[in-house]
Amino acid sequence: MKRIYFDYAATTPVDNRVFRAMKPYFSRKFGNTMSLHSFGREAKIALEKSREQVADLIGAKPDEIIFTGSATESNNLALKGAVFANRNKKKHIIVSRIEHPCIAESANWLEKQGVRITRIPVDRYGIVNPSEVKKAITKETILVSIIQASNEIGTIQPIEKIGEICHACRQAGQEKKILFHTDAAQSFGKIPIDVNKLKIDLLTASSHKIYGPKGAACLFVKQACLPDRQGVGLEPLLHGGGQERGLRSSTVNLAAVVGFARASEIAKKEMKRESQRLAKLRDKLIKNILKIENSHLNGPAQKRLPNILNFWFSFIEGESLALRLDLEGIAVSTGSACSSLTLEPSPVLLAIGLKPAQAHGSLRISLGRQTTGKEVDYLLKVLPKIVKKLRKISPFR
Amino acid sequence: MKRIYFDYAATTPVDNRVFRAMKPYFSRKFGNTMSLHSFGREAKIALEKSREQVADLIGAKPDEIIFTGSATESNNLALKGAVFANRNKKKHIIVSRIEHPCIAESANWLEKQGVRITRIPVDRYGIVNPSEVKKAITKETILVSIIQASNEIGTIQPIEKIGEICHACRQAGQEKKILFHTDAAQSFGKIPIDVNKLKIDLLTASSHKIYGPKGAACLFVKQACLPDRQGVGLEPLLHGGGQERGLRSSTVNLAAVVGFARASEIAKKEMKRESQRLAKLRDKLIKNILKIENSHLNGPAQKRLPNILNFWFSFIEGESLALRLDLEGIAVSTGSACSSLTLEPSPVLLAIGLKPAQAHGSLRISLGRQTTGKEVDYLLKVLPKIVKKLRKISPFR
Repeated sequence: MKRIYFDYAATTPVDNRVFRAMKPYFSRKFGNTMSLHSFGREAKIALEKSREQVADLIGAKPDEIIFTGSATESNNLALKGAVFANRNKKKHIIVSRIEHPCIAESANWLEKQGVRITRIPVDRYGIVNPSEVKKAITKETILVSIIQASNEIGTIQPIEKIGEICHACRQAGQEKKILFHTDAAQSFGKIPIDVNKLKIDLLTASSHKIYGPKGAACLFVKQACLPDRQGVGLEPLLHGGGQERGLRSSTVNLAAVVGFARASEIAKKEMKRESQRLAKLRDKLIKNILKIENSHLNGPAQKRLPNILNFWFSFIEGESLALRLDLEGIAVSTGSACSSLTLEPSPVLLAIGLKPAQAHGSLRISLGRQTTGKEVDYLLKVLPKIVKKLRKISPFR
Repeated sequence: MKRIYFDYAATTPVDNRVFRAMKPYFSRKFGNTMSLHSFGREAKIALEKSREQVADLIGAKPDEIIFTGSATESNNLALKGAVFANRNKKKHIIVSRIEHPCIAESANWLEKQGVRITRIPVDRYGIVNPSEVKKAITKETILVSIIQASNEIGTIQPIEKIGEICHACRQAGQEKKILFHTDAAQSFGKIPIDVNKLKIDLLTASSHKIYGPKGAACLFVKQACLPDRQGVGLEPLLHGGGQERGLRSSTVNLAAVVGFARASEIAKKEMKRESQRLAKLRDKLIKNILKIENSHLNGPAQKRLPNILNFWFSFIEGESLALRLDLEGIAVSTGSACSSLTLEPSPVLLAIGLKPAQAHGSLRISLGRQTTGKEVDYLLKVLPKIVKKLRKISPFR
C-alpha cells in the first residue's frame, strides 16, 4: 500500500540535496571541529560556513548562531540559561498558554525551583494579545518567550509587537534585563524572519522541520547577549569543552549541522514559491473539510502557517480518526508528536477555548515539500467517509 | 599528500557498515518515534532495537539505556540530574582529578550552586586509589563519578572496587543515596564492560568514539534508578515531550541512534581481536618512542587502553610538535580536543605530577580501526627527526 504523509509538522524527510551535502562528513571529512590538525581545521571551516548559511535565513550575524542538538535543547537553554544567569535575584518569566511542551515543561520545572511564571492566555484563534504581555511585565521579569507559530494549530503570533514591548522595557532601564525569546521551530524556513526587525533576542530553529536531519538545531543569541559581551547573558546547560562560545559544550555534530545549513539555504531560496503552493493546498483542504457536517477549523483562516491545519469533528475522537486514516495509508496526527504520550487533552486546544471532548476530537494535518495535489484529493476522498463511519458507531452523539 | 590520522581519541570516522545501517533513516524511514502512525511505529521499532544493541555491549537491560545527543550531555545529566533530584538537602559529589572537561566543568558549576565537590587525586600513573574514595564519602554524598579510562593518557581505573565501595555504602543504609557514575566515553567498545559486575549505576557511552556518527550517546541508568521506579532517581536536564522515559526530551535523532547501535554491535564482535592488534602497535610505539632521548611515557605501561598513548618530550612544546607533524600529514593532538581552546596546561597531566612545562611538552597519539603497521612505521620515522629539529631551536634547553 502506498503511504501518504500528512505529518510534516512532526518531522520531515531529509531532502536529497541536504543528504548529498552531509554525506562527506560521516566518513571522509570526519574531524573534530576542536582539533588543531588538518582534519580538525577542515571541519571547523565547514562549521563556520554552516553558521553563515543558517544566520542568513533570519538576518543574523554568523556568530549569533549557537548550534545545539534539538529545538527542545535550544528552548531549554533559552529559559533555564536565562534563569541560571540571574542567580541571586527574584525571577519572573512570561510564556503563552500555547507553547510547545519543551517550553511549557521547562517553565513548570523552573516554577518548582522558585521562578514565578506568567502564562498569557490567547484568543479563540490562538493569538496572544501583546498588551497582555506588556501588563504582565514586572521589575523581576527576565524573559518573555512566545512561540512564533503554533506547532498544533499553525497560528502566527504578532511577534514584532511583542519584541517592540520587550525592547522598549529594556530601553526604559527599569526592567533592563528582559530578553525576548521566540520558539520558531515551526516557522523557521516557512515564513520570512528578520531577527532585527522583529526585535528578537533569542530564537530557536530546528533542522528536522525543514528537510534537514534530526540532531541539529540552533539558538540565535543576539550579539549583545553573548557571554563574552557586556550583555544580558545566558548560562550554558551543558558544561565541558566550551564549544559554541561556551554556550553549548559537546563535540559538534558536524554532518547534521552541515545538513541543517544546506536545508536553510534551500528553504530561503524556495520559501516564497513553496509557501504559495502549500497555502493553495491548505486552503483547498480547509474549504472542503469544512463541508463535512459539524467540522470546525482550529485557529484562524488567515495568519497561519502555510502548512499546518487543525480541525475538530463533533462526536468522534481524533485518535480513532487518525488510526482509521493510518489504516488507509494516510499519516496524520492528533497534535504534537511530543505530546503523544499523554492522554490529557491538548493544552493548546483548551487555551483556544475548546472543551476537552472537542480537543479530543481534533486532528492535525500538516503539509510539506512532497505533498501533491493528488495526495490532497485522496485525503479529501477518504476523510469524509471515515468521519461518517465513526459517527455511526459513536457513543457521543 | 597522504594524511595519516592518529587522533582516534578525539573522534573516529563512521564505519561504512554503520553508515549503511543509518542511511535509510534520513529520507525513507524518517518518522518521528513519538508519532502513532505507521511512519512513527517503524521509527519506534528501530529505536527499541537500537536500545537492545547498545545495552548488549555492557550487559544492561534495554530499558536502562537513555539515548542523548553527546557524551557531554550524558555526563552533565548524570551530575546535574542527581543534584536536581536531591533538591532540599545538602549535597556532596566526588570526582577524580583526571575527569574529562565535561565532568570537571559540571562539577565546577555545581560547586558555584552550593554543592560540595571532592576531587580525588591520582598517583603518577593516573590511577585513583579506591580507599581515597571511601574516605571521602560522607552522609551528604549523592554521587561518585570516576572516568573509566582517561581520554588523555589512557589509564584504566579500578572501577569495580570503587563500584563495590559505593554499593556497600548504599547497602549500609546510612548514605543510601550514593550513585556511582563512570564516564566510559573512551572505554566503551574498547574494553569489556559489565555494568552489573562493576556495580555501576550510571555510565556514559558515546557513538563517535567507536566509529558511529556524532550526535548520539547514551546514559546507562540502572533500572532501580529510573524515574518510574522507587529508586534514587535523576531529574532531566531537558524538559519537553518526555522522550526516553522522561529523562531526555527531544525528537530522537534516530539515524544517529541506529548508527550508534550498529557501531556497538560491531565493537562487540571485533573488540577482542582489534584490541590485541592495537595493543601490539601501541607497544611498538612505546618501545620505539622511548628510544628518543628525554622522552617519557605519561600513564602506566600496562592498565591502559589499547589505543591511547601520551608522551612528554623535554625541552620542546607539544603544540609545536603536533603542528610540525601536521605539516608532514600526521594528525596527533596535545590532549583532549575539548581542551584545545585553553592555553592552560592539562589538569590531567598536572594531576599525575607533571610540571607545567612538562605538561606543555606532551603529545597524545591515539590509534584506531584504520591504523596500519605502515602508518606506525611512518610516524616512528618522522617523529624522532622532528623532535631533534625542534630541540635544536628550543629556547628551553
